Formats: sequence, structure tokens, C-alpha cells
Amino acid sequence: MSSYSFLSKDELAELQKELQAKYAKFKSMNLKLDMSRGKPGSDQLDLCMGMLDVLDSNSILKSQNGLDCRNYGMLDGLPETKELFAELLGLRPEQIIVGGNSSLSLMYDMVARSMTHPTVEGMKPWGKYEKIKFLCPAPGYDRHFAVTEFFGVELVTVPMTPAGPDMDVVEELVSSDETIKGIWCVPKYSNPQGYTYSDETVRRFAALRPAAKDFRIFWDNAYCVHDLYEEGDKLLNIMEECEKLGSEDMVYIFASTSKISFSGAGVAVIGASEHNIARIKKQMTIQTIGYDKINMLRHALYFKNADGVRAHMKKHAAILAPKFQLVDDMFTSHLEGKGIAKWTKPKGGYFIAVDVLPGCAKRVVALCKEAGVIMTSAGATFPYGKDPEDRNIRIAPTYPPMEELKQAAELFCLCVELVSVEKLLAEKTSNEKVKMFA
Amino acid sequence: MSSYSFLSKDELAELQKELQAKYAKFKSMNLKLDMSRGKPGSDQLDLCMGMLDVLDSNSILKSQNGLDCRNYGMLDGLPETKELFAELLGLRPEQIIVGGNSSLSLMYDMVARSMTHPTVEGMKPWGKYEKIKFLCPAPGYDRHFAVTEFFGVELVTVPMTPAGPDMDVVEELVSSDETIKGIWCVPKYSNPQGYTYSDETVRRFAALRPAAKDFRIFWDNAYCVHDLYEEGDKLLNIMEECEKLGSEDMVYIFASTSKISFSGAGVAVIGASEHNIARIKKQMTIQTIGYDKINMLRHALYFKNADGVRAHMKKHAAILAPKFQLVDDMFTSHLEGKGIAKWTKPKGGYFIAVDVLPGCAKRVVALCKEAGVIMTSAGATFPYGKDPEDRNIRIAPTYPPMEELKQAAELFCLCVELVSVEKLLAEKTSNEKVKMFA
Repeated sequence: MSSYSFLSKDELAELQKELQAKYAKFKSMNLKLDMSRGKPGSDQLDLCMGMLDVLDSNSILKSQNGLDCRNYGMLDGLPETKELFAELLGLRPEQIIVGGNSSLSLMYDMVARSMTHPTVEGMKPWGKYEKIKFLCPAPGYDRHFAVTEFFGVELVTVPMTPAGPDMDVVEELVSSDETIKGIWCVPKYSNPQGYTYSDETVRRFAALRPAAKDFRIFWDNAYCVHDLYEEGDKLLNIMEECEKLGSEDMVYIFASTSKISFSGAGVAVIGASEHNIARIKKQMTIQTIGYDKINMLRHALYFKNADGVRAHMKKHAAILAPKFQLVDDMFTSHLEGKGIAKWTKPKGGYFIAVDVLPGCAKRVVALCKEAGVIMTSAGATFPYGKDPEDRNIRIAPTYPPMEELKQAAELFCLCVELVSVEKLLAEKTSNEKVKMFA
Repeated sequence: MSSYSFLSKDELAELQKELQAKYAKFKSMNLKLDMSRGKPGSDQLDLCMGMLDVLDSNSILKSQNGLDCRNYGMLDGLPETKELFAELLGLRPEQIIVGGNSSLSLMYDMVARSMTHPTVEGMKPWGKYEKIKFLCPAPGYDRHFAVTEFFGVELVTVPMTPAGPDMDVVEELVSSDETIKGIWCVPKYSNPQGYTYSDETVRRFAALRPAAKDFRIFWDNAYCVHDLYEEGDKLLNIMEECEKLGSEDMVYIFASTSKISFSGAGVAVIGASEHNIARIKKQMTIQTIGYDKINMLRHALYFKNADGVRAHMKKHAAILAPKFQLVDDMFTSHLEGKGIAKWTKPKGGYFIAVDVLPGCAKRVVALCKEAGVIMTSAGATFPYGKDPEDRNIRIAPTYPPMEELKQAAELFCLCVELVSVEKLLAEKTSNEKVKMFA
């Protein structure tokens, strides 16, 4: 297929009619599909049902340290669950706190505590500064941005590249501006592009020399074991890199089993330097006596070790890889070569990012919605929900069953075509020049 | 036994020798007992093991609203779990948010959010005031006081009476001082005395007219169904009283199953007016996508309804009532009539409070520790851990098995006697007058 940029006004008008007819047909189907969030499908959740059998009324609910998991205590979690995550994340068990079912909560709590209490002994809490800022590599994860926005932190967009955030920009900003207190990162299979930070990017993170002594990297390793194929991306271990340089207090690592076991009932962890762990525990002990240890035990017994988790993730991959493939196939057959869209081909994670022609993303998402398919809001992947070029759309292919996913992807492609044609027609009238994709 | 106040110096010295000999014998036993915290015993936790059988790999994990409990979503919790708690607490399901495993966390989060975000639309967050204060009925719960202390809130002691906090003091302070933003309450079987607020106290709470429009009552109904005997204390429903007066936004209610199901793996709730629930959810949605719904489902299926919970609590009572009785019997036989101690006789909850002679509590707890029995730190029941008269000691009789409890209580009585005799001997020398109990 040749690029739409070669079409004449009449050809575009003709094409528009065709596409409108197809769209009308889609609307008449009264679809009700949801591709908005990175949720596992119910077949993925079925994979873990065996976890509900590892404990029953005959079980001894003791941790390997002899303590009763049913009772109060063990603020930082069960030793065996710490070990499991330590192995998965390449940390020492002493660098782990096991939390509740949500890593988002752990990140929120970390920001919340930092607002009211010092991050570094003797410094002011972030909330006592006139103004503070967070770097937000974008496109990025809307819930990250929302946490800092909620606390009145100014969000500063940093461009994303296939190797991670633009580190020239990050280094320049972080080393010169002491009001910059942190950066949000999804270092492996980034949300939404599925990019994995390069070794150089990770090393440059570890080597940051921030103007603010209480600057922190929020390293949300949400997709640490979420490979789609045998050969997944490899992420360098940031803690090891930091330890080489003595900057290990600068990074907070987060992960969870939300997309390994159950999204609604997994376990989440913080990984941090021993010094940070001690400081966090001192504050956390005011908030809780301990998180759900029976669920931690369930996870430790079910997965046994990191290999157990990796074997389990292969089952997820068997379900997810065909979905990612389907979307890519649809995009290729409907959009490739037309100069109207560009998309990523991640080897893991939960999302595909699509760029459409500037000024078209919102309208594409609106048309999808009108025809019964809910997409992530256009703009959601940028700070304050505002995509400056209105072009990035996050595709979440995991939740719908294949048949529905196919319909949704087809409709999406149709909407991209339709809105692009509208745009190009408007261009012919206004003589504005639309920048097409190569 | 007649009061020690009638003993001569020589008689006291003689008695001291006897008691010291007994104490030496205790020390030689190398006891290692813990009466410090309100933890259920393992036999109590055994009562709920059946909850681990209600879900297994063959279960359909759908909520009654059709949603999959395994997946993300349902920020405010499962409808069936909301209903269960609504029935227990005399609220409407719309007035409930079901959280994670810890009501302390829910209280902490509520205070934390109030520090950084307005409690009442248009007002400043608490953290933006030069100084704010919280009323702390004391003796009270150390973890409550610690939460507000952590956020730099000034703790103001309010005297407790058998009918609840001294409401003359509460009304006077709350109506005149707009820096007072809240009060901590354990309205039923208070920690540590086991007092239940009278109907009049509850009504006076509902009728408060605070100087601060963002004043809130933190109503920690931790022991709402924790009766020891058939005839338990009755607590008036504060939400109903507030609704009569239009003051329903003034109260936040908290409860949990930590001492019903599993202390480490229960579910906790917030009860509040519909208006407050909407406001809390708006903030909470930044913090989490939802709490552990599989555990909520487990609780709803296992207990079925409020009657199910009440029937279960009878089994707890069968274990706990003899422990409370034992302690009371020991206190009666060793301390009654001597004028050296006074203690409460609660009909529920987790604690007994003992007052000893002024200036003696710390030394009693220290002597117990020296002989191998850990008590709650003297002073812990007061703001900043400082009992102005050094006389209140919290007894937590639930955790140790009967035989250990008997030893611990015996040692405790001995230490009270010994320290009292020391005190009275010192009095004879210094001519200070010790105020004995009637």
C-alpha cells in the first residue's frame, strides 16, 4: 500500500466515503469492548488457581523463621517471600520489604512519606519546599504521573527513546535543578511502548549526580519477568550499578505479582539499599503492624523460587504472545505503508504504543468509543493527561479474548484511517502540511 | 487483707524481705513470657482455619456484582463484604469502604491524606496550619497517638472516665480551639480499660459543634463484636446519632477482622457518610486500584452475615473469658484490699488496665521484665509515652496460654506488692504521703 500522502483530494474523498461506510457497519454491531487498561485476561488468572490450594485448614501457617503467619508482626514480610523476590530482582533479601497487594500503593506511600518526612536525615520533607518537580519520561504510565500530581509536584516531561529516557536531558536537569526530587521509570517493557532501558541508560542512571541530595529514582520494574518470547529483553541490575558507585540510596525499586498471580490479590515489594530499608521501616511501623502474611506464604509456597515464577510466566506468554502478534498483524495489514501510523513491537510487557498523525489521537479514541470500543484516553500517557502533539495512543491487548481483540483492532485501524483521511482532506483545503510517517 | 497503709515500718521491712525472696524464686525460673500486645492466642487463630477452605482452585471467584475478584478494580471493595460490615456496624453498604488487612493503615492513611489535602472543600490541609492538635483520651491506644505524633500533631490528653472521655473537657476544647482537628476514640471496650462509651457520651459526640469545620472524630470500633460474655456492653450507633443532627461528616468509623479472623490477614473497613466516602474514594483512587478482593470474598463466604460473625465471636469468648477471669481472680487474691492497686473488669475487648501507686508503674514493669515477663511499657497508654503519674499499666491477657498467663499474673502481682512496699517504706523515711486506693 502506498502512502496516503500521494492521494489527491478526490481520491481522499472517495476513500473517506468507503471508510465511513465501514465505520457505520461497525457501529451497527453494538460492540462493547474494553482495551483501556493493562488487565490480564481471565484465562491468565486461571493459570494461578492452584495457588488457592496450597493452604487449607490443615496447613501449618508458620514462616520458615518459626513465626505464625496468621498473627500480627513481621513488618517487612516473610523471609521466604523476601527471598523469592530477591532472587527475581537480583537483590539481597535484606534489601526487600514485602507489602500488600499493590505496588502502586507502595509507590504512593513512598511519595506521601517523602512529602511529610525527610528523605535524607536533616533535610526538609519535599512538602516543605516552595516547589518541587518530578521528571516524567513520556509517553509513560498515567498512574505514576497522577501520584505526583496529587501531591502538587510539578511534572516535567522528558522524551522517551527506544533506549529509555533521553539521558542527556535527564542528566542536565537532575544535576542543575535541586527542586527536581525524583523520576518515574518503567525500565523494562516500558508502559506504553514496551521499550527496555539500554545498559548505558541504566549505568547513566546509577551515575547521576543530582543537585538535590534527596533525589530518588522510582524504578517500577513492573514487567521484570513479563517476556512474551523465549528471548526477552535483558535489563541491567540498577542496584548493582549503583553499589559500584556508592549511589545505592538513590534508587527505590518496585515490583509486584499483580500480573504474575492475581491482579487483585498479589503481593508487592519495595527493593532498596539496606540503609533505605531501615529508614522506610521506621516510618512504616507507624502505618501498619504488617501486611497480609498468609498471602505472602501462599505465594512463596506456590512459586517456590524464581525459576517457579519464570516457568509460570511462560504460560502467560503462551496466552499473550498471540494477542500481541494479532494486533501487530492487523496494524501491518491495515496501516503499514500508508504513512499514517507508527507502532512499537515489544517483546514483553502489557502494551503497544501507537503514534498517529499529529492532532488525531483524541479523535481516533473518540470514534472507537462511539463504536463501542474503550481505549486508554488519548493524552493519558503524558503528564497532566496532555499529549502536546495529540498523537500517542496506548493499546492494551491483554484483556479481551482473541475474537474481541480482533474486532477491536480492526475498528481501531479503521478509525486511524478515517481520522487520517479527514486530516489530509483538511490539509488540502487549508494548505497546512501534515507530517506523514516514513 | 487489710490495707498496707496500716503497716508499720518494721512490718513493711519484714514483708519486703518475704516478697524479695519470692521474687528471687521467680527469677530463678527463667520465665520468657509476653503480655505486651493485644494479640490473639494461636488457639483463637485456629478457630478460623475453615476460612482457608472456602476458596480453592475449583471456585468461581466472582463477586455478587458479577465482577472477577481476581482482577483489578472495585476500589471500595466487594458488595458482599460491604454488606457484611454494614450489618455489623449498623451502617448502609454505601457508607463502607473495605480496605486491606489493617485498620491502623486506614487510619494512618486518613490522617496522612488530611495532612496534605483538604478535609473540607476549600479549607487548608491540616499540614498547612502553623500548629494543629488532636485530643487523646488517656489512658488510650499507643498506636493511635503515634500516628498523629508522627505527623507533628500536638497531642492533648483528655481524661478517660468509665463512661468515655470526659465530655465536659472535650466540648470545651473542641468548641473553642480551631487548631483541634480530631480526637482518637475506641468507643467500645476501650484500649486499655475496656470501658464502653455511655449513650450520653455518644450523643454528646454527635452534638459537638467544633470551632474547626474540618474537625473529625476517629471512631476506632476495634472491639465492636468482641464480647466476653452473653451480656456484652451496648454501644450507641454514632452514625445514627450524627445523622439526626446533620453532623454525619464529622465521624470516621474504623473496624477490622484482625481479632475476628486472622490478625495478619483479615480485612479492615472505613465507615463514613456517603459524602465522605465519595471524597475518600477520590483521593484513594490515586493510591491504589483496589485492595485484596479474594480475601474479601473469603471473609464474606466464610462468615455469610453478621450473625455468622457473632456466632464465631462466641468461640473466641469461650477462650478469652477464662483468661480475663484468671487475671481478675489473681488480682483479687493478691492485691485486693491492700490499697496498692485498682483494675478494670471489662466485659469484652483485649485489655485490663491497672493503676498502681503513683510513681510505681515503670518500676513494676521493669521488675517483671527482669524476671522474664514482658509487659506493655509503662507510659505507653499516654500521649508521648509519658504517664504523668507513672501509675497506669496495660494488661494484655489474650496471647499467653492459661498456664503461662497464671505465672505472669502471679509475678505481676508480686512486683506490684514489692514496689508498693518499697514506696511505702520510702514514705516512712521521707514523710511524704502516698495516696492509697480505697
